[in-house]
Amino acid sequence: MKQQLISRQATVDQVIQQQLAALPQDAPRLRDAMHHAALLGGKRIRPFLVYETGRMLGATDQQLAPAAAAIEYVHAYSLTHDDLPAMDNDALRRGQPTCHVAFDEATAILAGDALQTLAFEVLSQADQLSAECRIALIQQLSRASGYLGMCGGQAMDIAATDQQISLPQLKAIHSAKTGALIRAAVRMGAIIGNASAEVTGKLDNYAKAIGLAFQVQDDILDVTSDTKTLGKPQGSDSELNKSTYPVLLGLEGAQQHASSLLDEALHALQGLPYNSDNLADFARFVVQRSR
Amino acid sequence: MKQQLISRQATVDQVIQQQLAALPQDAPRLRDAMHHAALLGGKRIRPFLVYETGRMLGATDQQLAPAAAAIEYVHAYSLTHDDLPAMDNDALRRGQPTCHVAFDEATAILAGDALQTLAFEVLSQADQLSAECRIALIQQLSRASGYLGMCGGQAMDIAATDQQISLPQLKAIHSAKTGALIRAAVRMGAIIGNASAEVTGKLDNYAKAIGLAFQVQDDILDVTSDTKTLGKPQGSDSELNKSTYPVLLGLEGAQQHASSLLDEALHALQGLPYNSDNLADFARFVVQRSR
Repeated sequence: MKQQLISRQATVDQVIQQQLAALPQDAPRLRDAMHHAALLGGKRIRPFLVYETGRMLGATDQQLAPAAAAIEYVHAYSLTHDDLPAMDNDALRRGQPTCHVAFDEATAILAGDALQTLAFEVLSQADQLSAECRIALIQQLSRASGYLGMCGGQAMDIAATDQQISLPQLKAIHSAKTGALIRAAVRMGAIIGNASAEVTGKLDNYAKAIGLAFQVQDDILDVTSDTKTLGKPQGSDSELNKSTYPVLLGLEGAQQHASSLLDEALHALQGLPYNSDNLADFARFVVQRSR
Repeated sequence: MKQQLISRQATVDQVIQQQLAALPQDAPRLRDAMHHAALLGGKRIRPFLVYETGRMLGATDQQLAPAAAAIEYVHAYSLTHDDLPAMDNDALRRGQPTCHVAFDEATAILAGDALQTLAFEVLSQADQLSAECRIALIQQLSRASGYLGMCGGQAMDIAATDQQISLPQLKAIHSAKTGALIRAAVRMGAIIGNASAEVTGKLDNYAKAIGLAFQVQDDILDVTSDTKTLGKPQGSDSELNKSTYPVLLGLEGAQQHASSLLDEALHALQGLPYNSDNLADFARFVVQRSR
């Protein structure tokens, strides 16, 4: 699985590198900051899901590349803004200085803004796809990343800091903050691969389960791992007084929850008339990873 | 002219109000901040240009409404982020507290982010328009607002602060920072109104001229007006040591430049086989306004 992730990372990085290299030199500092923010390493989980879902359904890499890059731009912009002093105030991400540390706050804000715009620009210009397909992709990505998804989830997360919240509330926060974009990745692959409504429904159940499992495992690693392995400060959740799955369920309870979400994900893939081995392996990776 | 602008403002405000009211209650503080940022008054120049260009070509208000709202969301998000402490650090806009003052910095960053997303979401969901038309609109708006346009222009503007720059450099900054979005407004109206390439070309010349004229007049008012009339601090350009047209050309030279840009705009409208009186009146308004 790790090999497959790494090989996909290289594919995505190459697409992103080409797209950013094509930008003219007018604002070199902004371009460098966008490059820094978008190519800071990372697992490239969302592009991976776009590619693997689409390939399973028979789409080509060339058809899938714009959606894979676009969803990573949205993810990269959100990390850049989340790291800002006014938000999580993180100096380190993936073992490297965050964008506002490597550049400055104004540039990091602008780089995030321009990466979000680039996501929609890349999708709108993907003329290897029909206009209808591009519109469906933009609908998915915008719904998943705006008020109803990622941005709203981040706001809910901020509002919940220092608050006692329930498990359903925590799930609602994470299904918006991180889950929506993971579901969008799978849906975008399904749109490009022309999936039937039935297949899309099953894939969506898979994506919902791995999206939550991903967050549960993230929370677990913040307790059990160390800063060097994580590439970001271990223990930052409890330092920020954030509600997490280990806080609400205990560490063992959180681990059991991750494991039952894995079962859900694998169950959703059963009965798909396609070879879903890669998606199944990915679900296992999500709850077994150490960073 | 003022009456027409006010009547269009009411139309746009109503569309924006309805769209924001349709958002669910999940993140009330973020929703309030988006509302504050998008409905802080303002002249609604970009939606006005979408509407007037489109109507001149025979498009209906119902066809034009999504583009008018979307371009205003992009404008509102950019003001919200530009006002942040790390950028221009403005506490007052249109006589009211800016978003990070009325709420907080994190919420202002998120509100800007979510308003940008909403712009593309609204365009992608405008099913009164064909998919091809929606894609063309998203292409225009994204190109005009990202690295190649507004964001890049803002970065160039920041880089030029405290620098001696030339008139061509100042023009390059403003044609990206504010000009691109004004051109996009006219182009979006032209796309929805199904304009020929020839008409689009003339309208684009008009838009280029009024986009620059708008900035020249803004710079002039920063010197000649007062804080109460402007609704923002007078003299803030020179306080921030920004290059402006009055600095480079002298006040009289800047006024002459605005006047010759008006001539260019009016000339571009001549020979259009449509009634372009409203667009001509608007060009005059741009260089004669006092706020």
